[in-house]
Amino acid sequence: MAETEQTKVQESVQESLQQVIDLLQKHQLVEELVHKQDMPRHDLIESLVHKQNLTTLQKKLDELHSADVAYILEALPLEQRLLVWDLVKVERGGDILLEVSDAVRESLIASMDRHELLAAAEQLDTDEIADLAPDLPHDVMSELLESLDSQNRARLQSAMSFPEDTVGSLMDFDMVTIRDDITLEVVLRYLRRLGELPGHTDKLFVVDRDDNFKGILSLKRLLTHDPEVSVAAVMAEEAVTFHPDDEADEAAQAFERYDLVSAPVVDKNSKLVGRLTVDVMMDFIREETDNEALSIAGLREEEDLFATAWRSIQNRWTWLAINLVTAFIASRVIGVFEGSIEKIVALAALMPIVAGIGGNSGNQTLTMIVRALALGQIHSDNVRKLFLKELKVSLVNGLIWGGIIGLVAWLLYHSPALGVVMIGAIMLNLLLAALMGVMIPIFMHKLGRDPAVGSSVMITAVTDSGGFFIFLGLATIFLI
Amino acid sequence: MAETEQTKVQESVQESLQQVIDLLQKHQLVEELVHKQDMPRHDLIESLVHKQNLTTLQKKLDELHSADVAYILEALPLEQRLLVWDLVKVERGGDILLEVSDAVRESLIASMDRHELLAAAEQLDTDEIADLAPDLPHDVMSELLESLDSQNRARLQSAMSFPEDTVGSLMDFDMVTIRDDITLEVVLRYLRRLGELPGHTDKLFVVDRDDNFKGILSLKRLLTHDPEVSVAAVMAEEAVTFHPDDEADEAAQAFERYDLVSAPVVDKNSKLVGRLTVDVMMDFIREETDNEALSIAGLREEEDLFATAWRSIQNRWTWLAINLVTAFIASRVIGVFEGSIEKIVALAALMPIVAGIGGNSGNQTLTMIVRALALGQIHSDNVRKLFLKELKVSLVNGLIWGGIIGLVAWLLYHSPALGVVMIGAIMLNLLLAALMGVMIPIFMHKLGRDPAVGSSVMITAVTDSGGFFIFLGLATIFLI
Repeated sequence: MAETEQTKVQESVQESLQQVIDLLQKHQLVEELVHKQDMPRHDLIESLVHKQNLTTLQKKLDELHSADVAYILEALPLEQRLLVWDLVKVERGGDILLEVSDAVRESLIASMDRHELLAAAEQLDTDEIADLAPDLPHDVMSELLESLDSQNRARLQSAMSFPEDTVGSLMDFDMVTIRDDITLEVVLRYLRRLGELPGHTDKLFVVDRDDNFKGILSLKRLLTHDPEVSVAAVMAEEAVTFHPDDEADEAAQAFERYDLVSAPVVDKNSKLVGRLTVDVMMDFIREETDNEALSIAGLREEEDLFATAWRSIQNRWTWLAINLVTAFIASRVIGVFEGSIEKIVALAALMPIVAGIGGNSGNQTLTMIVRALALGQIHSDNVRKLFLKELKVSLVNGLIWGGIIGLVAWLLYHSPALGVVMIGAIMLNLLLAALMGVMIPIFMHKLGRDPAVGSSVMITAVTDSGGFFIFLGLATIFLI
Repeated sequence: MAETEQTKVQESVQESLQQVIDLLQKHQLVEELVHKQDMPRHDLIESLVHKQNLTTLQKKLDELHSADVAYILEALPLEQRLLVWDLVKVERGGDILLEVSDAVRESLIASMDRHELLAAAEQLDTDEIADLAPDLPHDVMSELLESLDSQNRARLQSAMSFPEDTVGSLMDFDMVTIRDDITLEVVLRYLRRLGELPGHTDKLFVVDRDDNFKGILSLKRLLTHDPEVSVAAVMAEEAVTFHPDDEADEAAQAFERYDLVSAPVVDKNSKLVGRLTVDVMMDFIREETDNEALSIAGLREEEDLFATAWRSIQNRWTWLAINLVTAFIASRVIGVFEGSIEKIVALAALMPIVAGIGGNSGNQTLTMIVRALALGQIHSDNVRKLFLKELKVSLVNGLIWGGIIGLVAWLLYHSPALGVVMIGAIMLNLLLAALMGVMIPIFMHKLGRDPAVGSSVMITAVTDSGGFFIFLGLATIFLI
């Protein structure tokens, strides 16, 4: 043990990916060679080189953490992905299915038959099966349910019954529970007898004989207190707990705020029913922020990098269609003023500026407000203040940027009046953008919808059509 | 202990905020009342009601977790924020400064004098002081450095010397280290003697007498193995370790991938120098994704919700200026074709549609690629494949959406030729969007820049100007 081999993590997973790709390419070369020479496939499979490559690959994969295999599967095109999948699915299929992204999971499950799926699911805990459930075929799920004992079946059914994004759907059942009338020494002996502790166990849950939650005993306290002392004497009665139908979002914020590693989930009768852990909350946060970024860009859901073009088109069409409708409305607004444009063609060249700066400024306000809403910082008391501030900002920006552009317009087209119309239009459109930037997300929040989704499209639609209308309208009144 | 009081977290922090706001408003009412009656300020401060309100508020604040106080400070306008801050800064100033956002921290620090800052900093660990360092005045920092003992001074200086976003800048020094030649029983006794364990201790670090890292002993193993066994027999020699100059981003991904709670940081000579914990990594992830969302919307940095209008303007002007420049370029592209627009004014109404759908589609591609780049899934082997897929998607989308809009244009303006130009322009602009959506982020990545920042502005600029150019160009060639 003179030299310890320490895994330099990130390098190693990138390296692993490269090694797998190299092995796959060697494998493919052999296949192609064989293909060209019209060697019958049977001989190929028997061929030594071919076998050797796959054996090396298998060995490489066996060394890797399931999360790393998942990473590699996500980074491979479909054909190679399934080849690798065939080499790992028997032993670790369940674990790996849990780790891959939804889109890739679908592609893997599609390649498996009923028996393989059942075998994979049987490697998993109840709460993990519940996570896979939406992607599993019905017959597999019912067969699985039958194979479980009554406690686990009840747990699985209850886990699946909670809506996505609630604590109930994210909790696991790996609680280590103790009574409060025993000494720490007894607890230590009990743990030794257990022989193993579930991942992320930083505290034990203290319950009475009816499983009512009474408090927590952190491992830290267990380890630093006199073994002769009773659990009741060192446990903490006040603990951060969650209810199964709490929103996952709020639980995640609590995990961040209070730096939790695990926390008990109790039902309305204060009975301990499950446990939340930081790794699940971290995945949840990552997924949520990812989805937000995707939805802002107009992707309906996470897309497998190597999805077929056809699947990508389906994933993207909704937002393109919405965009087209809003663009069409803006186009009709311009259509109304075709007469004015015919007379002063410069209007056509200048109008996108008014619309563009409005959209940009509106999105700035929007992002501020969406963030504050997510953090629960906006209240009836301060909305007026926010409105006033944003209006002030847009007024000043309108004067500055409108002034610059107005000046340029004047110089370019030798028309001071056009410059003044430009200033006025930019100022009005920025005010509109500020108004909408505050109102749209607050309104959506009041309706109980996620203000991060769709708000950006809405505000751009308003500032586009509004910008064209304001600018061309002012021009029609004052210049024509 | 019949009834345990369990904190229902999220509700309670929202409730606390409301209570604080109510108390502040009562306080303000009294102030205003006094103000109106022209009572001298001295009497006011002495007034019973006034004092009572502040006492209640103080009591309320004392009950709250520092993270909750931070949350409340962020949700309050400046004046009220400083009032609350005065009530908490003496006892918990340091902790709270760590928890609040950068923008709010600045406003709090600005209100403190040197002595208060020193007092706050003295409540903190070395690694925590390093986090505050960029915001502290120079004289405070040098005074702080002098007050530390030599080990802590060296640690603080080394922590501050690491660039932001490296492991070195995020690690703490709360490692509990043990030797491998002792038994678990001895370890247990040692921990009891320590009396307390640092937060997020899920494993002990095994080192030799020169602090060289040799492996880890998880608390789980410590608790589940026979106390007579030696550390060497149960410790894990292979562990996920980090180097101080590893990128924080990659460390965060490793924490997510391997579900870590804490991990050792070792230097090049495999000497143990620090520790990373999941709470810090979670904050890092949150901050990083927040910053990305802000930069996409064109905000330079996180904005205090109650910043003055003037500060907000400064935070937002860069992107508005960039947007204005790109909009101006697009405007000049249109300007080139003013002759064509004069002849067919319909072009002015239709051109925003071509530009808009290109921008939307380009941003979809871009988001996919940026995400894949962040995950390290893009390699020279698969770039061609991705290109082909995106081009296929945009071709099909161009045919579908171009076809629809082309048809509408034909019907609206009774010109089949205009419809055909519309189809062609939309198809070409979507192809351009796909090309740029893949190329821009990959190019920025190659240059070592974050492809999430600014790519969206660039692609919109290209699809706007490009869209106008393609559409008006085709129209000029075929219709005029």
